[in-house]
Amino acid sequence: MLTGNAGDALTPVLNRIDENLADSLMRVFELVRIPSISTDPAYAGKCREAAEWLVAELEDIGFQASVRDTPGHPMVVAHHDGPSANAPHVLFYGHYDVQPVDPIELWETDPFEPSVKDAPDGSKIITGRGTADDKGQLMTFVEACRAFKEVNGELPCRITILFEGEEESGSPSLIPFLQANAEELKADFALICDTAMWDSETPAISTSLRGLVGEEITVQAASRDLHSGFYGGAAANPIHILAKILADLHDDNGAVTVPHFYDGVEETPADILRQWEGLGRTADSFLKDIGLSIPSGEKDRSVLELTWARPTAEVNGITGGYTGDGFKTVIPARASAKVSFRLVGKQDPEAIRANFRDFVKARIPADCSVTFEEHGGSPGIQLPFDSPVLQKTRTALSDEWPNPALMIGMGGSIPVAGDFQSLLGMDSVLVGFGLADDRLHSPNEKYALKSFHKGQRSWARILAALAAR
Amino acid sequence: MLTGNAGDALTPVLNRIDENLADSLMRVFELVRIPSISTDPAYAGKCREAAEWLVAELEDIGFQASVRDTPGHPMVVAHHDGPSANAPHVLFYGHYDVQPVDPIELWETDPFEPSVKDAPDGSKIITGRGTADDKGQLMTFVEACRAFKEVNGELPCRITILFEGEEESGSPSLIPFLQANAEELKADFALICDTAMWDSETPAISTSLRGLVGEEITVQAASRDLHSGFYGGAAANPIHILAKILADLHDDNGAVTVPHFYDGVEETPADILRQWEGLGRTADSFLKDIGLSIPSGEKDRSVLELTWARPTAEVNGITGGYTGDGFKTVIPARASAKVSFRLVGKQDPEAIRANFRDFVKARIPADCSVTFEEHGGSPGIQLPFDSPVLQKTRTALSDEWPNPALMIGMGGSIPVAGDFQSLLGMDSVLVGFGLADDRLHSPNEKYALKSFHKGQRSWARILAALAAR
Repeated sequence: MLTGNAGDALTPVLNRIDENLADSLMRVFELVRIPSISTDPAYAGKCREAAEWLVAELEDIGFQASVRDTPGHPMVVAHHDGPSANAPHVLFYGHYDVQPVDPIELWETDPFEPSVKDAPDGSKIITGRGTADDKGQLMTFVEACRAFKEVNGELPCRITILFEGEEESGSPSLIPFLQANAEELKADFALICDTAMWDSETPAISTSLRGLVGEEITVQAASRDLHSGFYGGAAANPIHILAKILADLHDDNGAVTVPHFYDGVEETPADILRQWEGLGRTADSFLKDIGLSIPSGEKDRSVLELTWARPTAEVNGITGGYTGDGFKTVIPARASAKVSFRLVGKQDPEAIRANFRDFVKARIPADCSVTFEEHGGSPGIQLPFDSPVLQKTRTALSDEWPNPALMIGMGGSIPVAGDFQSLLGMDSVLVGFGLADDRLHSPNEKYALKSFHKGQRSWARILAALAAR
Repeated sequence: MLTGNAGDALTPVLNRIDENLADSLMRVFELVRIPSISTDPAYAGKCREAAEWLVAELEDIGFQASVRDTPGHPMVVAHHDGPSANAPHVLFYGHYDVQPVDPIELWETDPFEPSVKDAPDGSKIITGRGTADDKGQLMTFVEACRAFKEVNGELPCRITILFEGEEESGSPSLIPFLQANAEELKADFALICDTAMWDSETPAISTSLRGLVGEEITVQAASRDLHSGFYGGAAANPIHILAKILADLHDDNGAVTVPHFYDGVEETPADILRQWEGLGRTADSFLKDIGLSIPSGEKDRSVLELTWARPTAEVNGITGGYTGDGFKTVIPARASAKVSFRLVGKQDPEAIRANFRDFVKARIPADCSVTFEEHGGSPGIQLPFDSPVLQKTRTALSDEWPNPALMIGMGGSIPVAGDFQSLLGMDSVLVGFGLADDRLHSPNEKYALKSFHKGQRSWARILAALAAR
């Protein structure tokens, strides 16, 4: 039983986490071995297998857990009572799906055969697709629950868990599922574990996130592929049309040119910008380890402002014509690109989607055509800085790590935080233990063993702090 | 034996061609069944198989034929004496390699299982990759030789045959092979069969061809693929850089912007332009059957001028980032494009390659890099209109087909014609029986059965006419 002094009761739980580390590693390895790639329909069965594995794991800890079908990959929903009826009720969110692994030839280890390896700096890392995004992260919370249960026979809060299987593919089923199960899923607030630390000694709570609009555009010119000798100079080339559209997306100052794109974007207050400057993340320090040195976005803004507080347009993929070995003098019939926008402030995802489509259509010659495919849309979010939950979480994290926890912005998009706000009326506290060099979405993804271990301890501290109201 | 009156002696040969048609179809089917795709290293063995098949075929007719190794796919070289030591000596050129077949799902028949089918207009067509480009075409000449040999026991001219296996992949071995075997290959003039008729009733001799420069460019930004949430707005996106380069290739009037690109390009004389106008090929008639209506190239020029007499820049392929199903919010490390230039007049291929590389390099940010891969280069060519060989060929073709033969320009590039001129000092007469709707380089390539049959008869007439000097 937790006493009034959470600190005293917490020590055995933290000790149990330490004792369980080897076993908890075996458990996360099992989960990483399941190649639950949600964007590729060929792996649908593996996504379900990961969901079923999690249900079994949660049932083992004492949750009432189930795989819940959706039109896409299933959700996992689990419930556990707290110590009393008036204990805080938290909804924990993570996702069990992972990114594709291409280009597979660049992986130094099998992406789905995890291992613990020594990093060049001497630290231990867990290798494999999904170790950081998000299987290793969500397991830090599950393992914290396991330790509480083993030590105390109960959990310090009432806990609902939601694990999604479509986070890496635009979360098509999330909103309908939240709408259909709002009563069941609603809690006092949400905890989301899909973010990063400031650095390996400094935990962070993300208080703002960028939203995302994904669009796939396909430009169609001739009704079939053409020989560039016979038709070259007379027939429209859809790659040229597409290149012009994509080149037009940014002006010479790096600003996005889609009309009304910056509607709802506010300038970051000067005092916040000064605080960010104090963090010491310069263009050089941020870009050096990826082999770059020049910020590519809007001019005269720091890399922190560019990635935390400014919206972007990025082409995430492009294909058209002959892309195999050698050369083929073809004018292709079509070319396509995947384009995403990161949103901040009050930018409206659907207005941006519509304005982008108009922007594209205005650049399609009269005898050509364009089709669009929607890949998700969510607004950016900004959490209130004065929330007691945020303050308790900050203190708990600061107790675990060498440095005090920072409240930071977050360049990535976690649409679920916005959806929890709009559909369930809940704020979300975003805490994660990823590091900048975890190679999310890239070959050789990894998760620090220290993140995995101290992440578990952090959640134990946070849950205890939240319970002590 | 051919008598002084070629017409009388020719009739049995033409009759024999008619009688052999079914057998000649079976022979070309055998050749089309060999998937000799030269751009894909996986098919190297098939290229050699096609060369060996041709050697056996030519030996069967009485040629001294051999497969000749090169650093790439082999050449086929064959020789046959003429009726006398002072008979004309012709070099016949064709290529046995074919284009890739992607996208394979758009083929209505197996590309490598040829068949004779009814076209919508009631005509018969031979389906399959390479039927028109160039296996069906080169076999028209071989079958004409076979008929002469069967009827007369000899050929009317001294004939050397050169079949290349790398025409569709930039002919990397051609120039060294011509240089190394110049004495063996030199003839009075060359006959090249890799071009098209004006229409299905009107044969054509191509007296000008565009040259070709092929370049593959790969833009490298970050040292690895990046998460667009974490780095988006700060890290360079190579697709953006590439799109900007490709968009910059043409100005608003459709002209190519690479510096000095138009050096060596002369305006077509007004009387020639008027003749071309008389051919009735309008933008509407030329573009309608490929689903387009607006000429895409330089403004205020006819489609014939654009495709016969103007140089172009075309992007033939582009790839970067995630191109699979679904969506992946990645900023890729690199992106690449295959770009080709069609050349006319005295444009210098290597100067254009160098200027294009400078044009690209000038658009690469200081912290990114670019690499280039060369895919062939050849100047355009222009044949003398007053050559007796050209006139004899024109008369022979006009005798076979309903309409008189036209002398036309040719938008495609047949580098070998330029190489024969520069390395062997020979003019080339370009005669082919392809049609505009043969779907060269596209799914569902076909060759008209009439082209295959009357093409054989045309070569019989041409050889007889050339022999009668």
